Amino acid sequence: MTLTAPPPTEVPASPARGLVCRNCGATFGLVAEHACAQCFGPLEVDYDPERMRAVTREQIEAGPQNIWRYAGLLPVGQDPADRVSLDPGLTPLVRADRLAAELGITGGLWVKDDSANPTHSFKDRVVSLAATAARGLGYAKIAAASTGNLANSVAAHAARAGLPSYVFIPADLEPGKVVQSAVYGQTLVAVDGSYDDVNRLTSELAETDEFEDTAFVNQNVRPYYAEGSKTMGYEIAEQLGWRIPAQVVIPMASGSLLTKVDKAFRELVAAGIAEDTPWRVFGAQSAGCDPIATAFDNGWDVVKPVKSTGIAKSLNIGNPADGPYALDAIRRTGGAVGRVGDEQIVQGIRDLARTTGVFAETAGGVTVAVLRQLVEDGRLDPAQETVVLNTGEGLKTLDPLTPVVGPTHRIDPSLRSARAAGLVG
Amino acid sequence: MTLTAPPPTEVPASPARGLVCRNCGATFGLVAEHACAQCFGPLEVDYDPERMRAVTREQIEAGPQNIWRYAGLLPVGQDPADRVSLDPGLTPLVRADRLAAELGITGGLWVKDDSANPTHSFKDRVVSLAATAARGLGYAKIAAASTGNLANSVAAHAARAGLPSYVFIPADLEPGKVVQSAVYGQTLVAVDGSYDDVNRLTSELAETDEFEDTAFVNQNVRPYYAEGSKTMGYEIAEQLGWRIPAQVVIPMASGSLLTKVDKAFRELVAAGIAEDTPWRVFGAQSAGCDPIATAFDNGWDVVKPVKSTGIAKSLNIGNPADGPYALDAIRRTGGAVGRVGDEQIVQGIRDLARTTGVFAETAGGVTVAVLRQLVEDGRLDPAQETVVLNTGEGLKTLDPLTPVVGPTHRIDPSLRSARAAGLVG
Ligand SMILES: Cc1ncc(COP(=O)(O)O)c(C=O)c1O
Ligand SMILES: Cc1ncc(COP(=O)(O)O)c(C=O)c1O
Ligand SMILES: [Zn+2]
Ligand SMILES: [Zn+2]
Repeated sequence: MTLTAPPPTEVPASPARGLVCRNCGATFGLVAEHACAQCFGPLEVDYDPERMRAVTREQIEAGPQNIWRYAGLLPVGQDPADRVSLDPGLTPLVRADRLAAELGITGGLWVKDDSANPTHSFKDRVVSLAATAARGLGYAKIAAASTGNLANSVAAHAARAGLPSYVFIPADLEPGKVVQSAVYGQTLVAVDGSYDDVNRLTSELAETDEFEDTAFVNQNVRPYYAEGSKTMGYEIAEQLGWRIPAQVVIPMASGSLLTKVDKAFRELVAAGIAEDTPWRVFGAQSAGCDPIATAFDNGWDVVKPVKSTGIAKSLNIGNPADGPYALDAIRRTGGAVGRVGDEQIVQGIRDLARTTGVFAETAGGVTVAVLRQLVEDGRLDPAQETVVLNTGEGLKTLDPLTPVVGPTHRIDPSLRSARAAGLVG
Repeated sequence: MTLTAPPPTEVPASPARGLVCRNCGATFGLVAEHACAQCFGPLEVDYDPERMRAVTREQIEAGPQNIWRYAGLLPVGQDPADRVSLDPGLTPLVRADRLAAELGITGGLWVKDDSANPTHSFKDRVVSLAATAARGLGYAKIAAASTGNLANSVAAHAARAGLPSYVFIPADLEPGKVVQSAVYGQTLVAVDGSYDDVNRLTSELAETDEFEDTAFVNQNVRPYYAEGSKTMGYEIAEQLGWRIPAQVVIPMASGSLLTKVDKAFRELVAAGIAEDTPWRVFGAQSAGCDPIATAFDNGWDVVKPVKSTGIAKSLNIGNPADGPYALDAIRRTGGAVGRVGDEQIVQGIRDLARTTGVFAETAGGVTVAVLRQLVEDGRLDPAQETVVLNTGEGLKTLDPLTPVVGPTHRIDPSLRSARAAGLVG
């Protein structure tokens, strides 16, 4: 428990009225499905606009110091007793004046630092929603296919709640993410294959009798899961004094987070909580896994799957489920997509750490390096206020840094040795 | 910037009126000294009790969501513009019912989880105070001798503020702590020796011309630095609804943190902010570095230095500066000291992770394992409310876990392989 306001005496109703197909518009109840029974399109949560409009800044500000302050805009978790959650969110929005000066950004630059979440990535937001929905829908267990951060978060949520969990990861994940996933004492399955292979396998497992009572957080309860990412957008706006920033740079794996930040801004405007000022969302990928960047460059509406490589393992989804929706949000808002190679990613991590004191994982390095690229290409306006997302923690991806950063001096514990090293005259 | 209340229109004055010798009681101005000019005893901040009594719960609760909400009880940082800070604090107080059940604690158990701080240890609290004092006292640079977490925090604070820093660490520190200290791009000196050797060296360096303009956070500005740890005590009481817990288990290296948690409780009572209910503070050390535990067991008032070994490197201070004061607080409140070996430390990390979803570094493993020991020995009352401190992050000390935790299964991405592994029938 973090500091929370006293629970409201009356539990507000969920603003969700069902699920809706993003493809054909068919509507469904609040069920455990992620694909449309008519057209197999992806389902998302459908809200009652009246109930959303009833939410006020004052209500939000009086809520707890975590994502649940936005419960009035989320599908589940209105009653604190229903939540299965590490209570993530309200992570720092750090003013990055020194980085802005280096990049030539004059309109103001902020880093939204989600490494401050309980398991140190933005995934705690989505897992809190998914696990809460899962329990509400009557599931006994939770599970996930993961590029690492989701694994950490699912296992930690399960440990806190005393729920069994099944986490499936590519066997070649970073050691930090493997140990963190394992330490919570839950089932952890290493799969010899890519994330896309793991994801295919869990889709099959979800259909077996053994996993009938299991919520796969990014599969059968994906519509609820994905809404957790909206809280990142809500917080940015609230922390700017209920103002939507002109430009946001967002890392993309499945592309879900980017679509939800954009959706959060649209909802805040529709609900009358934030003013309708223009914003642009920019996507960041690594050169080792750039299917959405390639589709953007070629003007495609669909995304062609790729085989992924490179150090930004948490972003290595070669077949991104939300790719087309991410492309749509980027084009609709007038944004762009950048891609950067491994060396630039490491440089991005170092630039951010050196100028802000925020230590990001490779995904954050991607995003900062893409920010630099977009400014240099003239695709991002340096005169407009910009927010860059750090979605994960540097301690989880140490290996690419080990060869390039280290002590600047090595000495014996003597003044003589300090003198020889030039530290004193 | 995290969410903050609007800055007060009038900046309150510091409640500090000077420094006082803990040994002989001589008083000094608010200067950059940590040893008494009369008797070489350690100096600490002396407060005006009137000004402390003027602080109210309401004032604190209206403050920012970080340590600076307690500015009215701290020596520096009353004016937000003066702060050199990553704005740490207000970390989660996690209810640990599953761990309590395993240990047989019936009076309620909480984990204060300081891995949620910006650089993922409680050291951000002390460095924010030290760096703010350093700038106020006119220093141009900051520096530290560190067992790791302090290194991370000093370098990150320096990076955020654009201040040069000099960090000295034992060369054999954990890889995660070395990389995190180095990534901020500041001077990092690896010293072939123990922490106590490093500390001796920096005392000498502090006297050189080259370091005349340098604040050594845990040396020449130590009185200000140490006050940062009080915020841990304030937060625990506030998060319990302005109630002081009956028992607190605290890891000890120099012993400073323990003395300051006790001091925080005394101040809250004296200022009329919390009720005067009895509390006991318990110290935790590793068997590899147990000078305070040994002094406690033998009834000594002074601490005999030891050579330190073992995996709890962040606690490996063989010659603890605040040892006698820690002993005093433990004896005065009726507490005790426990010591645990490396295997128990690893088990402590795993027990905490498995039951609460909190992933602690070795120091947290020490504290949880000592909690178990104190309950088993009957020295801690299982019927009374207890808080255990996790002061650091598991991702920083992966090595002792790598041999003992890992995937529970390894398979190919096929149902057939999942079946062979017994995951499905
Ligand atoms: C650190 C980090 N950032 C960003 C993402 C991208 O998320 P999405 O799949 O929603 O695009 C992930 C996904 O795993 C991640 O782990
Ligand atoms: C994680 C952690 N816990 C506890 C301590 C103990 O602090 P103190 O020296 O105040 O006893 C330290 C000191 O370095 C630490 O790094
Ligand atoms: Zn459809
Ligand atoms: Zn004295």
